[in-house]
Amino acid sequence: MSGWLAIAGLGPGAAELVTPEVTHALAQATDLIGYAPYVARVPERAGLTRHGSDNREELDRAMLALKLAAEDRRVVVVSSGDPGVFAMAAAIFEAVDEGDPSWRNLDIRVLPGISAMFAAAARIGAPLGHDFCAVNLSDNLKPWDLIERRLRLAAQAGFVIALYNPLSKARPWQLGRALALLSEELPETVPVVFADAVSDAKEAIDVTTLRDAVAARADMRTLVLIGSTQTRLIARSSGRPFVYTPRSAGVSS
Amino acid sequence: MSGWLAIAGLGPGAAELVTPEVTHALAQATDLIGYAPYVARVPERAGLTRHGSDNREELDRAMLALKLAAEDRRVVVVSSGDPGVFAMAAAIFEAVDEGDPSWRNLDIRVLPGISAMFAAAARIGAPLGHDFCAVNLSDNLKPWDLIERRLRLAAQAGFVIALYNPLSKARPWQLGRALALLSEELPETVPVVFADAVSDAKEAIDVTTLRDAVAARADMRTLVLIGSTQTRLIARSSGRPFVYTPRSAGVSS
Repeated sequence: MSGWLAIAGLGPGAAELVTPEVTHALAQATDLIGYAPYVARVPERAGLTRHGSDNREELDRAMLALKLAAEDRRVVVVSSGDPGVFAMAAAIFEAVDEGDPSWRNLDIRVLPGISAMFAAAARIGAPLGHDFCAVNLSDNLKPWDLIERRLRLAAQAGFVIALYNPLSKARPWQLGRALALLSEELPETVPVVFADAVSDAKEAIDVTTLRDAVAARADMRTLVLIGSTQTRLIARSSGRPFVYTPRSAGVSS
Repeated sequence: MSGWLAIAGLGPGAAELVTPEVTHALAQATDLIGYAPYVARVPERAGLTRHGSDNREELDRAMLALKLAAEDRRVVVVSSGDPGVFAMAAAIFEAVDEGDPSWRNLDIRVLPGISAMFAAAARIGAPLGHDFCAVNLSDNLKPWDLIERRLRLAAQAGFVIALYNPLSKARPWQLGRALALLSEELPETVPVVFADAVSDAKEAIDVTTLRDAVAARADMRTLVLIGSTQTRLIARSSGRPFVYTPRSAGVSS
């Protein structure tokens, strides 16, 4: 059995943030699978068949990948950021769990990447320098009530909160509701960061506060960071302030 | 002013998990600063002065880095994993915040790396495929009561929990206490993963349950992952099971 499946993270955008491990897997692949804009980030080459698909077809994509690997193809499924964070790795293992039992013994590897939250954090300082959490704000696959409860507990715990998938055309109100409920749990001065397209030509990062944060600033690709009561700004004579959360902490709010 | 300071993540261990961005910064540096075992991971070369130090001296190390950058040196501070996650980036910004005001206008960049939790997750499947949090179990810089409260809230929220710095010679009991209190909040069947030296020759990964997890399995460098009630195992005919947390979730425990 010579086929394999690598689930690879392309990082936030820039080529210099793609690990050599991922580059190497892409060079050996016969088949490239993923959401079309991510597939488009990998240069075309002879011998590499490209299977771009729509964003909503994650399980179909996972099954195609497993089927091809079982047919002795060398398959790379690409995600943006890290494939294990709200991306294709979980979808693949769901398909393995529920699918053909022989898939369990395929050579399946996950190749980590630079996640959007770490790329965004790095660009502005060290907002994740203390304990933190990551919450997928999409209620496509979990009830909104659970998300609200989770956000409240996260704020009460004193976590810095990274919000993935904050908003889309089909989910227009969720980020506004999240900001409103977090305002009930946290001081209005808590720093909030909106980060788009980090490391890409279209990079745009704004630092604001929970009081002044406007949900409409975000779109599907924005990473939103909500600081804790400990998160601080360092003003600079020009440019954006640094944002960081100290390693030490007193009692949480 | 030609000096700069890059705070770089070397990833979990393997060279193929170091981003080209970090490799490039290291090639341009005049000074390399960090905890001695991390400094030792960077090959020696002419023109590169190496400043290895003990693990406890983070603020001293940060001030040395800033002072050298202010003297027009090209300085790279190295951390394992991602520098923004329980590593040197927060220490540097603490020093900037409290130190010489001119430091605020230095060219300071954080270069992200593959964090230990994503490297460990990738090796076993997709345990972080749903919402998750990261908690530094060291009570050197925060009260133990706060850690206990945070862990209980994290478990109640249904987060998969990544524990960093679970144990050391100076902190022998903390992980045992954490596992005991998590056992009060979560079913005893919840998967627990101990991951050491991921991607390194000494890599050792064990999958167990909250019932059977033994704190003494861990040391200072172990990453411990505590599953949620949704986290599942996929048995394989040979080798470790896959561990993953589905994207969808019902009501949290």
